[in-house]
This record gives sequence, structure tokens and C-alpha cells, in this order.
Amino acid sequence: MTKGRLEAFTDGVIAILITILVLELRAPHGADVAALAPLAPAVLSYILSFIYIAIYWNNHHHLMHAVRHVDGRILWANVHLLFWLSLVPFATAWMGDNHFAPLPVAMYGGVLFMAAISFTILVRALIARHGPTSTLARAVGPDRKGWLSLALYAAAIPLAFVNRWIAVALYVSVAIVWLVPDKRIERVLIDDSAHAKPAEG
Amino acid sequence: MTKGRLEAFTDGVIAILITILVLELRAPHGADVAALAPLAPAVLSYILSFIYIAIYWNNHHHLMHAVRHVDGRILWANVHLLFWLSLVPFATAWMGDNHFAPLPVAMYGGVLFMAAISFTILVRALIARHGPTSTLARAVGPDRKGWLSLALYAAAIPLAFVNRWIAVALYVSVAIVWLVPDKRIERVLIDDSAHAKPAEG
Amino acid sequence: MTKGRLEAFTDGVIAILITILVLELRAPHGADVAALAPLAPAVLSYILSFIYIAIYWNNHHHLMHAVRHVDGRILWANVHLLFWLSLVPFATAWMGDNHFAPLPVAMYGGVLFMAAISFTILVRALIARHGPTSTLARAVGPDRKGWLSLALYAAAIPLAFVNRWIAVALYVSVAIVWLVPDKRIERVLIDDSAHAKPAEG
Amino acid sequence: MTKGRLEAFTDGVIAILITILVLELRAPHGADVAALAPLAPAVLSYILSFIYIAIYWNNHHHLMHAVRHVDGRILWANVHLLFWLSLVPFATAWMGDNHFAPLPVAMYGGVLFMAAISFTILVRALIARHGPTSTLARAVGPDRKGWLSLALYAAAIPLAFVNRWIAVALYVSVAIVWLVPDKRIERVLIDDSAHAKPAEG
Repeated sequence: MTKGRLEAFTDGVIAILITILVLELRAPHGADVAALAPLAPAVLSYILSFIYIAIYWNNHHHLMHAVRHVDGRILWANVHLLFWLSLVPFATAWMGDNHFAPLPVAMYGGVLFMAAISFTILVRALIARHGPTSTLARAVGPDRKGWLSLALYAAAIPLAFVNRWIAVALYVSVAIVWLVPDKRIERVLIDDSAHAKPAEG
Repeated sequence: MTKGRLEAFTDGVIAILITILVLELRAPHGADVAALAPLAPAVLSYILSFIYIAIYWNNHHHLMHAVRHVDGRILWANVHLLFWLSLVPFATAWMGDNHFAPLPVAMYGGVLFMAAISFTILVRALIARHGPTSTLARAVGPDRKGWLSLALYAAAIPLAFVNRWIAVALYVSVAIVWLVPDKRIERVLIDDSAHAKPAEG
Repeated sequence: MTKGRLEAFTDGVIAILITILVLELRAPHGADVAALAPLAPAVLSYILSFIYIAIYWNNHHHLMHAVRHVDGRILWANVHLLFWLSLVPFATAWMGDNHFAPLPVAMYGGVLFMAAISFTILVRALIARHGPTSTLARAVGPDRKGWLSLALYAAAIPLAFVNRWIAVALYVSVAIVWLVPDKRIERVLIDDSAHAKPAEG
Repeated sequence: MTKGRLEAFTDGVIAILITILVLELRAPHGADVAALAPLAPAVLSYILSFIYIAIYWNNHHHLMHAVRHVDGRILWANVHLLFWLSLVPFATAWMGDNHFAPLPVAMYGGVLFMAAISFTILVRALIARHGPTSTLARAVGPDRKGWLSLALYAAAIPLAFVNRWIAVALYVSVAIVWLVPDKRIERVLIDDSAHAKPAEG
């Protein structure tokens, strides 16, 4: 039941975040194409952030499948993740309104970096609770995609001041890496359903 | 459980979208009828969008009844649908603030067209997962209302530049077509409950 | 399951409405008491609307307890109720920003009147589905509080132009009448749990 | 089921409150560090309020674990708590926009004080319903942290006019006290699961 309420609260916050992103897109005053054109950077940063938040929802969803126990440390690790995700609309608006200027692009990467760190902390808290031989620990495995993402964000932040489009390209690359659903967790879960259910369920 | 969380997340996003629509209606500064009158186009576009989003919730709800399995492709097809629905408040505000000018009316139709396309993609992903002889595939059937809607939106977009009220009339017509609840899915489901439950449940 | 999703969607919309009400309270620019004082009408209308929306959530909650079946007509009657409730933040802001001027006060009553009408339509749709001898029909009974509310709203709308405080006093009176939880439905449900469960459950 | 819907509604409102807090952080117009610096007070008050609302969600969550019955009085005590929490975004914005001026800092404390009072009323309503020897009553116990928080808020409000940073330090202190998860309720619940489940479950 605790797990259920944790999922429900997280779903609620993520659903609101993905939806209030659109509040940053203000309808322009004119009614012609010329009025619409200046919105292009805001629309592009909107699409990128929409995809990022959907990826977090998707990964959270897959991760929680393998969770059997929730404690106070896990609850707060989850709140910490939601805190960094809650800054995505702000960072998106600042980046879009300033036409991808270097500092806002770097700060967008900083928010993504901290969100990825907080997801990793959540995963560690879950593994600490379930044990290193649990289904969950094996499902997460070496977490290559997680470490790759952190490295790319860390590279993108200084690169934004060299050429901002390199940083944006790195953010898009990380999104593409994650758009492929996390087969590892699904595969281990299915294996466990086949082998281990009599012992674990 | 995956289906439950997909429904909960979708309900959350749709509930927020249908509610933040009203944030576009700004209370006028004056307190007399003259201050209220200029709001009429915004109120009309608000009502139309409220009904459209309610129709999507209703159809999504009916569709998910017949769903038994969810995979990564289905999750992303659903996120794709939510993306286009998330642009409805923006398109509504632009159309209402500009008193139904041609370009905003055409763009409103474009968003509805893409939402309908993404609903069709979701239906195809569900049928691919459940098989062409599943309850779900038979419940959806030839999907005449879906194809009719797509044709009417496609017609409305260029017609908005001829006479915008023709386009608006087409949007209203599609809404009326869908306000009738989707008897097909309900009927097939009831048939299946009567005949096939011992085999399928 | 249909009932569960109807409740979840309604809870979502009502939770958002009750929360975005507060977005109408803009933080004043000054930091002294003089800056806060002009907010008083907005705060008063905020409190009144908060209580009204909480009453609707509470009554909806009690009503749905006795519901066993949901159909398309009931879904749309519920959406219709949510539509009128969704106009409450707009009407609240207009009334508060204009310091309870007659027309906004009358319009606030108009929105409450239509919300009450749509609640009555929902109750009728539920009774039509469950039959006049159902637990639900007996629980609703003659619905004296519902008819009294409609009469008081209908009186308040023209009276707002005579003396707006009479109208406001009537809105406050209706809220007080409903703040008492609906014992009728609870009582009949408890009776039915005691007597009729073997036959109905 | 009533408990479930109460939790779902509360989760919905708290998820929205914690998310719309971020709407107060408006993206600055410039794209350099000088444009970001004036946001510091707003960001600090945002972080503090985010943590406070997360603490309320966490404590509400722990409290509801031990709840077995819900009645009208409890529903309204819960709505009363949500009302005071709903004023947190307003108080946060006023405090942040005015760079922690004395009156906004005192009012922030006033909202926290009333939220704590309403949480205490909710706890009392729950104990009145479950009895003084219930698992819930024993889990809450003497509620030292609750009374300490009330005393610190009451001290902070006048102290804000002496030195506002003392008041802010007190708010931070209370948050730290509560960030430690409520072991009392968890411990008594675990004891009861071990001893009393055969009799109570």
C-alpha cells in the first residue's frame, strides 16, 4: 500500500509537471505566421522537456515494478527526485525565452544532471533496502545508460559556453538513448516470474 | 498493474489539461456587461475544447476496457497522444484571443488532426499486441468514426482560409459525432462477457 | 472499474480546481499591511469557493458510495457537472477583483446555480440507471437540501442587483446548509448494509 | 474505500500544491548571471516550501496507515488542513518577492502555524473516532514534535519583527526536526503487526 501511494503521488506530480510545461507557451498576440515564428525556440524546448519528463515517468514506472518494500529513506529519495524534476519547467522557460543562450542551456543541463543524480540515489536506496541479490538489484545491473547520461550531461554543461548547439545535441542524444524502453528490468522480471516466483511471491 | 498506472497517469494529465484550459479565461477588469462581451470568443473556444478533451477521456476509457496487455510501444504511443492533447490549451487560447482568425482556426484543426492520428496509432499498437482476432480488435472494428473525423479535420484546415466558420462548423460536427458514446466497444465487450469469459477471463 | 476511474477522474479535476483557485491570489508588491488590505475581497471569495468545491467533492463522494453501475449517460452527466465547477475559479476571480460588484456577484450565483442543476441531472441519471427502489434512490430521497439550494441561488441572482450583500449572505447560507454531512445517504447505506447485503451484494 | 478516496484526493491536492509552487519562479528576461541573482530569495523560499509540503505529505501518509475508519468530521478536518496548505504558495511568493521582509516572513509563519493546528485537529478527530486505546492513539502518543513545532512557529511570528532571520532559522529548524521520518508510528504499527494482528485484522 505504501508503494501504491508513492507511485500515485509521483504520477500526480509528474502528470502536473508535464502539463504545466505548456503554460510557458503563451499564445502570441498576432494571428499570422510572423507572430508564431518567435515561438519556435520555446516550442523546441517544450518538446525536449516533454520527452524528458515522459522518460522519467517511464523509467520510474519500470523501476517500481521490481520494488517490494518502501521505507522513509526511499520516500525522501523519491521526493528529492521530484524536486529536481519540478525545476524542469523553469529551466525550459528560461532556455526557450532566451533562444538557447549559453547560460540557460548550461543550467538546463545542470537540472537534468541533478535529476539523473537523484534517480541514481533512489536506485541505490532501493537496492540497499532489497539487498544486492534481489530481483531489483539484478534488474538494474551495471546501469550503463545511467552512467553514460551523467557523463554526457557533465560534458554538456561546460560545452554550452563553447558552442551551445553541441550541448543541445547532447541532451537530444541522451533522450534518444532512453526512448528505447528499459529491456533489462523487463527481461529480469520475466525471468524471475518464470523461475523464482514460487520462492519469492 | 501496468495498465492501472497507465490509466492513472493518463487520467491525471487529461484532468489537468481540462482544468488549465480555464486559466486562459482571464477575469476582465470592468464589472459590467460591456467588460464581459469581449470574452465571448474565448468562452466559445473554451467550451469546444472542454468537450473535445472530455471526448478523448471517454474514448480512452472505453478503449482501455478491452486492453489486457501493455508494453513499451503502447506506453510511448500513449505519451504521444498526451503530447498532442497538451497543445490543445495553447491552440484554444490562440484561437479565442484572436476571435477565430483563419490561421489560429487552421492550427486548432491541425492539433485536433494530430491528436486523432496519435489515437489511431495507439489503437494500432494495442491491436498489434492483442492480435487481430482479440476482443479489442473486434471492438474497434472498421473504426468509421475515426476515419470520418480525420477526413473532416483534413478538410477543415484549408477551408479555414476560405471561410473560418466552415472550419469551426466541422469541428463542432466531429464533436457531436463523438458525443454519442462508443456503442461498438461496449456491445462487443458485453457479447464477450456473455460468450467468451470462461475461455478468456 | 468504470466507477473507480470515474471517481479518480472527478477527484483529479476537483483537486486541481480547488488548488488553482489560489493562483488568483496574486502576491502584492508591497510588504506592509497597506499592501495586503486590498486583497481582502479576493481572500473572502477564495474561502467561499474553496468551501463550495470541497462540498461538491464531499457530496460526490457520498453519492458514489451507493452507485453500482455507470453508463455513457452518467459519464456525460458527470462531465457536465465538472464543466460548471470548472468555471468557479473564473467567477471567483471576477467577483473578488471587482470587490463584490453586483454583476459579478450575480454571475457567481449563476455558476453555482448551473453546478447545482448539473448535480441534480447526475443524480437523476444515476437513479434512472439503478431504479426507483434502489438503495441509491432511497438514499437521495426527496432531496430537500438540493431544491432549497436551487431556490436560494435563483433568488440571489436578481437580489444581487438590489443589494449584493443579500446575495452573498444567501451563498454563505447555502454553504452552511451543506457543511453538515449528508446523513441521509449514510443512514440508508448503513441500513442496507445491515438488512439487504445478502440480497444485493 | 472512503479512506482510499480521502488519500487519493489529499495526494492530488498536495501534488498540485508542490508543483504550482514552481509557477512562482518566473524565468528572468536576461540570460546572464546578473539576471539570475535577484531570483535567489524566491528560490530559497521555494526550496523551504517544497520541503514543508513534502513533510506534510509524508506525515499524512504515515498517519493514514493506522486509520481504519473515516467519518464526516474527519473528511472536513482533512479539508481544513488542505485549506491552510493551499495558502503556502501565496505566502511563499509574498516572502520571496519581498526578499524576506518582516511582515511576509511573519505571515509565512502564520500559515505554517495554522497548518500545524489543522493537522493536530485532524489527529484529534481520528483519535476520537478510533478510541484512546487504538493503535492510532498509541502511535501518535504524546506528539512532542507537533507541540514543539507549534511553540516554535508561535515564537517565530513576533520574532520576525525583531530580526527576520531568527524567524527563518526557526522555520528551517522545524523542517529539520520533521525530516527525520516519524519512527513512533512506524514502530507501534510494526509492534501491532507482530502482536495484535490476529485480533485486529
